[in-house]
Amino acid sequence: MIGNLLQPELIELIRQRNFSQLRAILSEFSAPDLAEILTDLSPDDEAVLLRILPHDLAADVFEYLAVEDQEKMLHALGTEQVARILNDLPPDDRTALLEELPAAATQKLLNLLSPAERKVAADLLGYPKNSIGRRMTPEFVAIQQSWTVAEVFEHLRRVGRDRESLNQLYVVDDKGRLVNWVRLRNLVVAEPGTPVLELFEPQLVTLHAADDQETAVATFRKYDLTVIPVIDTKEKLVGVVTVDDVLDVLEHETTEDIQKMGGMEALDAPYLRIGLMHMIKKRAGWLSVLFISEMFTATAMGYFQGEIEKAAVLSMFVPLILSSGGNSGSQATSLIIRAMAVRDVALKDWFKVLRREIVTGLALGLVLASIVLMRIFLWPNREKLYSKHYALVALTVAFSVVGIVLWGSVVGAMLPILMRRLKFDPAVCSAPFVATLVDVTGIVIYFNVAFMLLKGTLL
Amino acid sequence: MIGNLLQPELIELIRQRNFSQLRAILSEFSAPDLAEILTDLSPDDEAVLLRILPHDLAADVFEYLAVEDQEKMLHALGTEQVARILNDLPPDDRTALLEELPAAATQKLLNLLSPAERKVAADLLGYPKNSIGRRMTPEFVAIQQSWTVAEVFEHLRRVGRDRESLNQLYVVDDKGRLVNWVRLRNLVVAEPGTPVLELFEPQLVTLHAADDQETAVATFRKYDLTVIPVIDTKEKLVGVVTVDDVLDVLEHETTEDIQKMGGMEALDAPYLRIGLMHMIKKRAGWLSVLFISEMFTATAMGYFQGEIEKAAVLSMFVPLILSSGGNSGSQATSLIIRAMAVRDVALKDWFKVLRREIVTGLALGLVLASIVLMRIFLWPNREKLYSKHYALVALTVAFSVVGIVLWGSVVGAMLPILMRRLKFDPAVCSAPFVATLVDVTGIVIYFNVAFMLLKGTLL
Repeated sequence: MIGNLLQPELIELIRQRNFSQLRAILSEFSAPDLAEILTDLSPDDEAVLLRILPHDLAADVFEYLAVEDQEKMLHALGTEQVARILNDLPPDDRTALLEELPAAATQKLLNLLSPAERKVAADLLGYPKNSIGRRMTPEFVAIQQSWTVAEVFEHLRRVGRDRESLNQLYVVDDKGRLVNWVRLRNLVVAEPGTPVLELFEPQLVTLHAADDQETAVATFRKYDLTVIPVIDTKEKLVGVVTVDDVLDVLEHETTEDIQKMGGMEALDAPYLRIGLMHMIKKRAGWLSVLFISEMFTATAMGYFQGEIEKAAVLSMFVPLILSSGGNSGSQATSLIIRAMAVRDVALKDWFKVLRREIVTGLALGLVLASIVLMRIFLWPNREKLYSKHYALVALTVAFSVVGIVLWGSVVGAMLPILMRRLKFDPAVCSAPFVATLVDVTGIVIYFNVAFMLLKGTLL
Repeated sequence: MIGNLLQPELIELIRQRNFSQLRAILSEFSAPDLAEILTDLSPDDEAVLLRILPHDLAADVFEYLAVEDQEKMLHALGTEQVARILNDLPPDDRTALLEELPAAATQKLLNLLSPAERKVAADLLGYPKNSIGRRMTPEFVAIQQSWTVAEVFEHLRRVGRDRESLNQLYVVDDKGRLVNWVRLRNLVVAEPGTPVLELFEPQLVTLHAADDQETAVATFRKYDLTVIPVIDTKEKLVGVVTVDDVLDVLEHETTEDIQKMGGMEALDAPYLRIGLMHMIKKRAGWLSVLFISEMFTATAMGYFQGEIEKAAVLSMFVPLILSSGGNSGSQATSLIIRAMAVRDVALKDWFKVLRREIVTGLALGLVLASIVLMRIFLWPNREKLYSKHYALVALTVAFSVVGIVLWGSVVGAMLPILMRRLKFDPAVCSAPFVATLVDVTGIVIYFNVAFMLLKGTLL
């Protein structure tokens, strides 16, 4: 919003090369606001503004940009400037940026770092993709278990200025293994001579660097913490994860899930900013797969063409019946995918889920069946519309609806569980995916019920 | 998981009234683990275990229970015990509990609090539902702007032990208005005589108590903070919100969104724990509305019954055509609902969205149309299946698919924006909702295209 108001003015000043005026305007904003302003400009204009900003502020602003903007900007900046910015980024943000880049670019950028910084970045990049190791920061305060409160404060005065959070101080042994932690608030009120041993917390929650980020989210939620220490396989303290990093991961994962549940591949960038061709590709894939699968409905309908020619009234209800299966399947699949994502439902619960969906599917089917029975039996010109066998037609539709809603609920609920069991992403069981599956079987169910009930009368 | 292993043993010990053994087992677990263990038991057994725990630990465990478990447990506990637990809960957790209870129960529980505690709870409850005022905690440290570093530390020694976070210290004037904040890490390394004025931060981010919780989520993400101070209309500092409280809100909101996007009302409890009747009600409502709306497809099909009787081949493609509209609509609506939820798309972007969806819809329609053209033209027994006018039938289907995919994409994308404009929740534009809307218009489009192309041949 800020960007939109300022944009014409800024672009005009860039064109005029009026840098002093530009600097005066930009100095009125904070780093997150500047990031928002820059985002609305072209990459070249962005790069110009970033060059104008004081060195520290430029790194701050860069940190607040989305990763795709960071990439574009890096292409537009000179190498020396890139080096300065990279060196000032916090390690976790730098990792997030580097892992999005092609391998060759990553290597080139790593070379721009100072040797100490490069070691940190390379360490972080050594952990598997989507692991906590990639999201942690080495900016924690470690203290020795033999120290007193006074010694801790002396240590804090030396290193405290560079560390993000001082609320938690992590106690390590002489091999760097995490032993326990103490709260700064307890140190502040303690006598200077107190050994830190006496202030140890009763509970130590840790994450392993190789754990996946979903585990981190679940742990943060379970223990209501804001920072969790990360240890390696030798129990050495290697970093800390903060909940705000996890918040970003969580939002990103959820967006991907929702897009997959809508029946498409997840997009790499926000809707308004992804290239149109790129978005069309991401949507066309699944849409084509679903379309080709749905062609089996035409095959199935073709198989029953004789029946349709004899009783065209039957074809009238096809969309109604299929959509009721698709809708109940959509409900069930959305429920279960989300329940698995927030760990409310585990693989081992599959039988409980099946039982619940059988009961629910039957109940929902009966509700819809009674609606359609009322509709047909109470309609004024029912004989004209549905033939003189309207009662049998009504029963056919009603039975089919019960069967298809039951089937939709069960398939919609069990497929995501099956997918997880087979190590696929459950979110691919989108509403359209389940609807397509249910459609083909729905036609078979419907025409078979019709055949049983209407043989000798309409058929 | 822990609960499942222990459950039989614990229940057995409760039955035997073997409280000393129970206490010994339970003392080995931390509060979050105990909460998990309790959750798997019946409310009565839960209450027994909570009585056995030491007073402080019981309040800790209670804090980690889900709100619906807390309610059940309160019913099962004696009033005196309830009072002790309530008095020990942090204010924000207490508010979350009280606001879920019926008004009469809330009043009764408020009376159990100590007068000072009651005032805090009532204050928190005075803010509108879903406002930040309900989620904040008054456990912050406020300092005076005239103080020196030494005076701040003296103050911390007095009040520090009770406060959750000391990383941020909030500076207020003599009327309690928030002036600025200082980082503890800067205090730790400063000379004791330094005035806090010299350590002020360059940027102060605040929230208003009446802001909604989504604003808090967006602010946390924009500024990468873990704690934000909350002010009232007179700019007085009234509390702080921490990002872990927002994390819970966010997960909850997203789950509601996903359930609505699946075509149902949001559930009040996790899938496996909500009452079956309750869940059926939440799902039956929308399912019935959609079913009744979808009946218009039967009406529309009835209107074209003459055409179907003449050319039964047309009915074969109805499910295929309708589903392609529903699927493209599902993609568009999922994309836009999520993009609005994470603030990537705003109301004012409606025209940009429309433009993108027109291009995307056309492109996707052409992809699907070419698939169906290939299918019909390359099929060996095409004349037998689709009549000797199969080329015209193929063109009819292809044109309809383009029209319906375009229509589905546009409707799916614009409806959520329209809903938000009319102050409704965009998430009600579920995939099934959009599919139903597109189905009825889809039939009309299809048969009109058929009428134009096939008149004089098949029709």
